[in-house]
Amino acid sequence: MTGIDDLPVRDELRGKSPYGAPQLDVPVRLNTNENPYPLPEPLVERIAERVREAARNLNRYPDRDAVELRTELAKYLTRTGGHRVGVENVWAANGSNEVIQQLLQTFGGPGRTAIGFEPSYSMHALIARGTGTAWISGPRGEDFTIDRAAAERAIAESRPDVVFITTPNNPTGNAVPRETVLALYEAAQAAKPSMVVVDEAYIEFSHGDSLLPLIEGRPNLVVSRTMSKAFGAAGLRLGYLAAHPAVVDAVQLVRLPYHLSAVAQATALAALEHTDTLLGYVEQLKAERDRLVAELRAIGYEVTESDANFVQFGRFDGEGGSHEAWQKILDRGVLVRDNGVPGWLRVSAGTPAENDAFLDAVRELKKEQSA
Amino acid sequence: MTGIDDLPVRDELRGKSPYGAPQLDVPVRLNTNENPYPLPEPLVERIAERVREAARNLNRYPDRDAVELRTELAKYLTRTGGHRVGVENVWAANGSNEVIQQLLQTFGGPGRTAIGFEPSYSMHALIARGTGTAWISGPRGEDFTIDRAAAERAIAESRPDVVFITTPNNPTGNAVPRETVLALYEAAQAAKPSMVVVDEAYIEFSHGDSLLPLIEGRPNLVVSRTMSKAFGAAGLRLGYLAAHPAVVDAVQLVRLPYHLSAVAQATALAALEHTDTLLGYVEQLKAERDRLVAELRAIGYEVTESDANFVQFGRFDGEGGSHEAWQKILDRGVLVRDNGVPGWLRVSAGTPAENDAFLDAVRELKKEQSA
Repeated sequence: MTGIDDLPVRDELRGKSPYGAPQLDVPVRLNTNENPYPLPEPLVERIAERVREAARNLNRYPDRDAVELRTELAKYLTRTGGHRVGVENVWAANGSNEVIQQLLQTFGGPGRTAIGFEPSYSMHALIARGTGTAWISGPRGEDFTIDRAAAERAIAESRPDVVFITTPNNPTGNAVPRETVLALYEAAQAAKPSMVVVDEAYIEFSHGDSLLPLIEGRPNLVVSRTMSKAFGAAGLRLGYLAAHPAVVDAVQLVRLPYHLSAVAQATALAALEHTDTLLGYVEQLKAERDRLVAELRAIGYEVTESDANFVQFGRFDGEGGSHEAWQKILDRGVLVRDNGVPGWLRVSAGTPAENDAFLDAVRELKKEQSA
Repeated sequence: MTGIDDLPVRDELRGKSPYGAPQLDVPVRLNTNENPYPLPEPLVERIAERVREAARNLNRYPDRDAVELRTELAKYLTRTGGHRVGVENVWAANGSNEVIQQLLQTFGGPGRTAIGFEPSYSMHALIARGTGTAWISGPRGEDFTIDRAAAERAIAESRPDVVFITTPNNPTGNAVPRETVLALYEAAQAAKPSMVVVDEAYIEFSHGDSLLPLIEGRPNLVVSRTMSKAFGAAGLRLGYLAAHPAVVDAVQLVRLPYHLSAVAQATALAALEHTDTLLGYVEQLKAERDRLVAELRAIGYEVTESDANFVQFGRFDGEGGSHEAWQKILDRGVLVRDNGVPGWLRVSAGTPAENDAFLDAVRELKKEQSA
């Protein structure tokens, strides 16, 4: 039987598996940082209405530059990000993964390098591989913070073309202080002119502010965002970036023409009309996230500080300890995520009932392990 | 003012412009091979209904493997392509451009090469550049057919990793005979194991049959397709491929996870329910295409044989002759395409009224030039 290895695939792909969390059918799914709240019914109706309108013109190519959508995203950023941006500062694509792919095709690629401080969002490294960009795994401390001096040293030594800083970080949950981001931006520019991508996929859940204002006067700094989490629209696949207009011009040299469908643009525009309602759910999730942190600590777990809609908890000692704990929680009907960080697991903040089910499961687990 | 060249973009992107036809607001747009028939109202309603349903679950990630959609695409191919395929033979992405990008990331990329026989679909070369694949411009004859011996020689000499054969070809309109495709497949395998991508974006408009049956017993042959043209859904951005299951497994190593939104999947599924109606429009367009060929010849133009929903016509002699003709047709309210093939222009088959407007314009142009 012919398999992948019988095809002339690139050598670095041989023996690899596709990225993706197990999609299991269990009562409580807290493994992919989805927003547990379905869109409110008036928004569902508005999406149907906007898509119906778009469908009447579906025989035509969509607006290649997604001007209306980028204008509304700019308004949202201006209103919530502490900095005035316009349509010329914003670019959108099919998920922040595609935004990152376009950035790496423009500023990374063959013969170039990118660095991230790991553990972090693992797609950064995978998209680097997919675009032929060499990947450098930068350091993170025992407590999962970025040690500024160590990170500056890594940048000075490796002279990367692209630097990823994920804040709040995934899967650990902690935010990176503004001063650290600024210091790493300076270190990166001192090494060679390079792009710094601040991945703010989870910023709406943070106790602190967006770093959006840092794009002012820094044309080599990009803030990337998504509608998957705060907007409760993981199924929509709508990511975007804010940066100097020259960056927006540059990614258009590599974007596939008409990459963003008319139905995606229509759906995103409908969701942006309901921003206030959706940000209300974000407030509920922040409260639940804080409760998860407090209760996990009360039970006796270690917890990493979280500014996201998920919490990293542990520690599960011994070879395979975290995977064993993952399985035992799953046996109790709750799916959490084993991101491969030895000793730690990650749980997404769900509805109060889902979080209760999770807390019951890990309480039992703790008793069992203490027994 | 900071511009693209002040950013650390890749050298090969400097001085380049984004791909895309001018989007001008004129009465008759026959420049991008769109289907001129809007989707029928019952299908518009069905899309709204299916998207409403999908929107109720939009807080969750979409089906990463798009199983339902690939199953329905497989049924469509089985019914119309002369060969039985299953879900395991089919892969879908955001437009055939993304399908091609995934294929080049898997089988091309840095240190590898791809060949196409030009003039052909110019995105093949651009996506090659975007994925770090070196591009080889293969030969096409004076009459825009592929000379088999010359093409075999080009393959033997350049030993490409990926071979593109576009049939019907864009922008020339002519189909590539089955025997030529088979010969080039053999030539490519003789040179080194390499992938042959048969781009059938316009196949539903052809006088001949799909080459889908050729995937049988040829794991290195891929047929790529789109819903943009025959399904009248350019705004949806839904491309797909049919191949050996190992190819479908292989592209999943580079696809961005959850690349295909839940709204795109829902919309495509709705369109597939209305296949018969949409293929009815295709029959009308084929008749109009044949009329365009006949009338252009009657007026005195040269016309390339067309198996697509567009026609290449000329010749406009002299330096810049075709661009000058393009402008004069535009001055009469009809937008056609100057693809940069010296002496030739391309017109998409529109509605009977649009085609009449185009024919009036080129009739006047001919008189003017003969005067």
